[in-house]
Amino acid sequence: MNNKIKIGIVGYGNLGRGVEAAVTNSPDMELVGVFSRRASETVTTLTGATVYPYDMLLSAEKVLAGEAAKGFPDIDVLIICAGSATDLPTMTPQLAGFYNVVDSFDTHVNIPKHLNTVDMAAISSGKTAVISTGWDPGLFSLARLYANAALPDGSDYTFWGRGVSQGHSDAIRRIEGVLDARQYTVPIQSAMDRVRSGETPNLTTREKHLRECYVVAEEGADLERIESEIKTMPNYFADYDTTVAFISAEELASKHAGLPHGGSVLRSGNTGLNDEYSNTIEFKLDLESNPYFTGSVLTACARAAYRMNEKGEIGCKTVFDIPPIFLLPGNREEIIAHML
Amino acid sequence: MNNKIKIGIVGYGNLGRGVEAAVTNSPDMELVGVFSRRASETVTTLTGATVYPYDMLLSAEKVLAGEAAKGFPDIDVLIICAGSATDLPTMTPQLAGFYNVVDSFDTHVNIPKHLNTVDMAAISSGKTAVISTGWDPGLFSLARLYANAALPDGSDYTFWGRGVSQGHSDAIRRIEGVLDARQYTVPIQSAMDRVRSGETPNLTTREKHLRECYVVAEEGADLERIESEIKTMPNYFADYDTTVAFISAEELASKHAGLPHGGSVLRSGNTGLNDEYSNTIEFKLDLESNPYFTGSVLTACARAAYRMNEKGEIGCKTVFDIPPIFLLPGNREEIIAHML
Repeated sequence: MNNKIKIGIVGYGNLGRGVEAAVTNSPDMELVGVFSRRASETVTTLTGATVYPYDMLLSAEKVLAGEAAKGFPDIDVLIICAGSATDLPTMTPQLAGFYNVVDSFDTHVNIPKHLNTVDMAAISSGKTAVISTGWDPGLFSLARLYANAALPDGSDYTFWGRGVSQGHSDAIRRIEGVLDARQYTVPIQSAMDRVRSGETPNLTTREKHLRECYVVAEEGADLERIESEIKTMPNYFADYDTTVAFISAEELASKHAGLPHGGSVLRSGNTGLNDEYSNTIEFKLDLESNPYFTGSVLTACARAAYRMNEKGEIGCKTVFDIPPIFLLPGNREEIIAHML
Repeated sequence: MNNKIKIGIVGYGNLGRGVEAAVTNSPDMELVGVFSRRASETVTTLTGATVYPYDMLLSAEKVLAGEAAKGFPDIDVLIICAGSATDLPTMTPQLAGFYNVVDSFDTHVNIPKHLNTVDMAAISSGKTAVISTGWDPGLFSLARLYANAALPDGSDYTFWGRGVSQGHSDAIRRIEGVLDARQYTVPIQSAMDRVRSGETPNLTTREKHLRECYVVAEEGADLERIESEIKTMPNYFADYDTTVAFISAEELASKHAGLPHGGSVLRSGNTGLNDEYSNTIEFKLDLESNPYFTGSVLTACARAAYRMNEKGEIGCKTVFDIPPIFLLPGNREEIIAHML
């Protein structure tokens, strides 16, 4: 036995691997297993971590009995690495009924509902859940909150990219004749420059971001039709200036294999009795790998979930509720002495 | 009576005026008075707020009795706007013995000692103190903490400016033959660019900042001696590339009257099992008035001090201990719905 925080990963895609790397590199944590709905023997983890069937997590008898004897690991916190569209709305409340959990639920409009559902489950089990963390929602949300606290009189702007949007890439892949695609969200430099200079412009969707698409088409496909279907697709592309380039599968693999992302949260606002002084605050991320960075933030939040639960702070929390000190390993006095 | 948070300001210089403006512009707060060691009739506040003698705060009888009848205002939180060198080390613990307090103590090396002294006082009185807040220490410290939590494997950089350093300006004013002076701390662009690009260079003091001095000399003063005394002054200037320009009192007043400041906290670090992916995080401030922005941050922290005290979280806190949500007016559900 040791004092490390025992982490389980639920779901094993890019984000799960990002969490696995972050937990493995955290000296105060131990990865006890990966839980997957796929057949365990088909899942190979980066670090050789044991893969368990997802259903074991929900077998209440095993959970309540601890079950070390039957090979079920002790778990302090589960980090749920699943999708917001269909998995997390049911999975997070289910698991919060037994475990401390962390998720990255990012469907902004449904966050209040998700918060309530998870809160009821976590309160009934006496556990702590941290939902909707990562970088947006997550660090970007914190940047917005602190900037609003410091500059109550001002305007917020969020620019995303340059980075790969997996949702938009998937939308292109669903078009007939498309074999593969990669979509980059690109912030418009002149708009960012205006905001950084202290202006508070009203910017339309089209004035803030461009969409760049790299598409591998089937041989003989009607490229004009594909380009037109992309550019006119409602919600995804119609409101943006969109460029489409057809490239080979080899070029896609060699030049567009990564999942970089990032962006800036800006707030421009005034201080002074009569708004005499203008100020800008910017929080900027430049990430070579979106899922690995997101996994790292989820891991820090798992530490906070564990600590809040130890202090009796049960229920569903967000990054807005977490005292920042709980995110770091080490003791408070040292962190204050070295980082404040 | 109303439900507004009743704020008292202790000390009335530039920072006190900054707090006065921020409290006045906060719909959930009410400024009940300014407390000054100067004769009350010599202090004129921006908003006409009543000025009380500082000693009234320490008259325990009045404090304990409430004293509304004798004209002593109810106070929920005192925001102490005094200097770190001699005032705050005694004033903050003294006042924390009776009131919830906020200060901007910024002598980094003495923060742990200040924390302990204030903690003992606040615990004995059942009050909540938030020390060492503003932007550095304060928002910059938070940027360092969150960036370290997200990127445990990395390097931190802080660049200050371009902005006026009042301590360095004062140091120049103490030189014989100098009538007035203004010193700008200037970050070196090429060093910032290297860090922003993801490099993790070892930078000396001289490689990170320049110091620009604008000096008004007495008529007939030995300008060469003054310039040499500035450039060789230990701690303040000797370790920097420093420029000195002699200008007229009129030019100083017209071109250098403001107190702008700002800067960037950067962290560059890797994610991935074997550090495959590089990432940079930047938090940047560009402030037209340093004291008004600092006053605005202190005001948000006064709201947090009040709320933490209401929840029974007594003792000495820092920004690292404050759940971010406590900094904003309004209710949690709405803030989560709109800002997360």
